[in-house]
Amino acid sequence: MKPQIVFQGEPGAYSELAAFEYFGSGISPLPCASFEDAFAAVADGTARYGLLPIENSLAGSIHRNYDLLLESDLSIVGEYHLRVSHCLMALPGTTLSDVHQVHSHPQALAQCKHRLRQMGVEAIVEADTAGSARMIKERGDTTAAALASKRAADVYQLQILQESMEDNPANYTRFLALTAQTTQEHTKGDFKTSIVFSLQNQPGALFKALSVFALRDIDLTKIESRPIQGKPWEYMFYIDFAGHADSQSGRRALDHLEELAAYLRVLGSYPRHRIV
Amino acid sequence: MKPQIVFQGEPGAYSELAAFEYFGSGISPLPCASFEDAFAAVADGTARYGLLPIENSLAGSIHRNYDLLLESDLSIVGEYHLRVSHCLMALPGTTLSDVHQVHSHPQALAQCKHRLRQMGVEAIVEADTAGSARMIKERGDTTAAALASKRAADVYQLQILQESMEDNPANYTRFLALTAQTTQEHTKGDFKTSIVFSLQNQPGALFKALSVFALRDIDLTKIESRPIQGKPWEYMFYIDFAGHADSQSGRRALDHLEELAAYLRVLGSYPRHRIV
Repeated sequence: MKPQIVFQGEPGAYSELAAFEYFGSGISPLPCASFEDAFAAVADGTARYGLLPIENSLAGSIHRNYDLLLESDLSIVGEYHLRVSHCLMALPGTTLSDVHQVHSHPQALAQCKHRLRQMGVEAIVEADTAGSARMIKERGDTTAAALASKRAADVYQLQILQESMEDNPANYTRFLALTAQTTQEHTKGDFKTSIVFSLQNQPGALFKALSVFALRDIDLTKIESRPIQGKPWEYMFYIDFAGHADSQSGRRALDHLEELAAYLRVLGSYPRHRIV
Repeated sequence: MKPQIVFQGEPGAYSELAAFEYFGSGISPLPCASFEDAFAAVADGTARYGLLPIENSLAGSIHRNYDLLLESDLSIVGEYHLRVSHCLMALPGTTLSDVHQVHSHPQALAQCKHRLRQMGVEAIVEADTAGSARMIKERGDTTAAALASKRAADVYQLQILQESMEDNPANYTRFLALTAQTTQEHTKGDFKTSIVFSLQNQPGALFKALSVFALRDIDLTKIESRPIQGKPWEYMFYIDFAGHADSQSGRRALDHLEELAAYLRVLGSYPRHRIV
């Protein structure tokens, strides 16, 4: 039986493309309407893994998933950077000059703004990229195109009129692979660890917290702060650092941080994925 | 002549309410379709000030405005924390039991999720809160209500069926007052300073940067990281600290930070607004 991998979105979504690229073609992808549903499907064992977007190089962090990581008991076991390339797709036979309207998610439309302006087409906002492709197919609309992943063109049998429609090619989305059961095998190699913690609201508190890494020459790859619900202007800090939580320096840094933090949780250690 | 204050949104938007509460009733509020247009109206002198949302206590930072602050030459001269209280409003004569559909911005609908579920109504997504109120008025729809600010009820002559519809009362939006011309009068008192900087991508770089504040017992009230466009996974850091940039310790800390930072800009020093 193929392992079930849950993602948020419709068939053909960028998240589904990322799941195939990360886990390989031998998976059974399971679409889910919301991030909440995707987390729940992993937690209740419906899916072995979830692959959820956490950050885009242009748009920034996907905060809802930071909050859901905190609320759930799931662990991070991997990461993947997907190169986001928006394809313009339409019904077979439709040519570029036939296209008067382009449907997509607001973010995809914004990322292709200059190209769409050059084409002189009307941008129409839809709930998601893959759904826009499905709609073109269902309506049989030959005057419209969708901006979506190349996988969406396969799924909905549309023809790609143009690839790489995005204005800025440095467009990557970082995905996290999540699971309910973790079995750690080894701690050496090129690992990354994600943690979340809160601090007492005192001058220098964050400086002291970061010292536990700096004093051990541990590289931070990401820092993010999120308001704590119900406590205006108090923050949870999400940090990614280079190395494994169970390595000697990783363990010592986390023990040290535990002395300072009001709350601390290790979300997972996982092999680092570098953009080539 | 009343000073023109630009805000993003339609008449009746939460931003307009914040403008009246912060600047007083003697202003002439100028609605703008986008954050970009609002920044431009201040930059070209159409408006003396802009009041833009930067952070919500539940939803987190409004990243687009961080990016626009960096792109523009405007200075921050004030801040205001608006208590966001969603009012359910309908045409006069409509009662709670008449309401089958509630229109609003997705975030407002999400923040009132439990209350709307109790009411057993359908939630319908619209582009903004004030626009939902205007639509109810224009359509003369007596089976629908909007979730919007109390000011929207005034503007569109709707009746408030229920105040404080939000599930979580700790709902505040922090606004920044921006201007093109700054005249600093004094540096003492309860000030806050906002800065933005980038660092060399080296282990411990952020720790060293924060040391310039910790070594001088300067309290940080906010830290935020944003990806630098075109440089995947390199970050701009936005920090708010207690005190004025032109105070002795503020100036020394910033001189010290300049030694370490690849880029540094002071966005402004302004009187701190505390939630009462």
